[in-house]
Amino acid sequence: MHRVRVKVVEGVLDANDTIAAANRADFDAAGVTVVNVMSAPGAGKTTLLERIVRELGDLRVGILEGDVCGSLDADRLASLHVPVTQINTDPGFGGECHLDANMVRSAIPSLPLDEIDLLVVENVGNLVCPAEFRVGEHRRVMVASVAEGEDKPLKYPLMFRACEFVLVNKIDLLPHLDFDLERFLANLDAVHPGVERVLTSAKSGEGIDAWREWLLRAAAREPAIA
Amino acid sequence: MHRVRVKVVEGVLDANDTIAAANRADFDAAGVTVVNVMSAPGAGKTTLLERIVRELGDLRVGILEGDVCGSLDADRLASLHVPVTQINTDPGFGGECHLDANMVRSAIPSLPLDEIDLLVVENVGNLVCPAEFRVGEHRRVMVASVAEGEDKPLKYPLMFRACEFVLVNKIDLLPHLDFDLERFLANLDAVHPGVERVLTSAKSGEGIDAWREWLLRAAAREPAIA
Repeated sequence: MHRVRVKVVEGVLDANDTIAAANRADFDAAGVTVVNVMSAPGAGKTTLLERIVRELGDLRVGILEGDVCGSLDADRLASLHVPVTQINTDPGFGGECHLDANMVRSAIPSLPLDEIDLLVVENVGNLVCPAEFRVGEHRRVMVASVAEGEDKPLKYPLMFRACEFVLVNKIDLLPHLDFDLERFLANLDAVHPGVERVLTSAKSGEGIDAWREWLLRAAAREPAIA
Repeated sequence: MHRVRVKVVEGVLDANDTIAAANRADFDAAGVTVVNVMSAPGAGKTTLLERIVRELGDLRVGILEGDVCGSLDADRLASLHVPVTQINTDPGFGGECHLDANMVRSAIPSLPLDEIDLLVVENVGNLVCPAEFRVGEHRRVMVASVAEGEDKPLKYPLMFRACEFVLVNKIDLLPHLDFDLERFLANLDAVHPGVERVLTSAKSGEGIDAWREWLLRAAAREPAIA
């Protein structure tokens, strides 16, 4: 039983990679860079996007919003007058815990690819499966809230390893938490040595410029973050 | 393709329910009550268990600890001299995002069922799939950290609906957050009307007595929380 289940899962992942490659070819043909943003629930993905999405200069950005159900985050971002497309993952069964390449493929006809340069995919809040399912993105970012504790890189290593950029968010809470920032950064380096990271707070504004600059570099496909 | 995948998933869930029923029969035969504790990563499950696990009077407790990898939480709890059994979910593929009934079934021979009255299962940190996979438990608890934001019941309704008790944790952080507690509780009631809940802080100690009392009532199988 167990062996059968694992084979099915591996088959799903192989199929996913094939579809992800097709998605990426379509994005490349349209000249659109895709950034996949991942985190645990409530780490601050949407708020971090709200903070920079209208301050990207000439860069035209669109959002692909993944949620189990509802459109709360999509509504927040749409109110900023950027094009937002919603994927809900719940038709499958009780709700898929991640976006996969086929869901994104289904959304491509709804995306205004001719009108954007950068597509930001906000994944379902989860530190496990989103790291396993590529969706056709060029870059992967993760947001880790300091409220989650400094052990998370050790407990969810694939997620911290799968990304090219880590936003260590909600640092305005540091004075109120038993959170050892040095230990968190050492844990991060233990699973992904030297990965680019920035400390951020959507509340105080710290690190928001660096986050915006990183996105601009990602959109320009600068080799420094290749 | 999509239809095939859904059928596979439904087959997995049916098989899971069958194994969960067998687990529960084994726990009942041993006179052990099982409580499944679920939350997002870093909501405070382990710390809330640390706070009460040695203050349960005559009740003998054991822990079954689920993690993608590592034994950080199991080590913390074992240091309190309670029996702890570790399940790591990573042998499957990149890491399963939840415990399932078959994983727990595999662990049963390692559990000291003759020496405990209550088994607390600490699930993998995730607000989606743990709600879908019963493991043979009698009661389900979830921990929601106020740092995650007040929209979470609406975004992950199955999780908030699947539990009989909600710990609204880290309330010591409320003065430092833009978190509308009334709105959170209204969202909770919108998806699970009247579900029993308590406000907790492992730091200040608020609500810890109520959490311990609930566990004692769960272990006694009191009908009030049936």
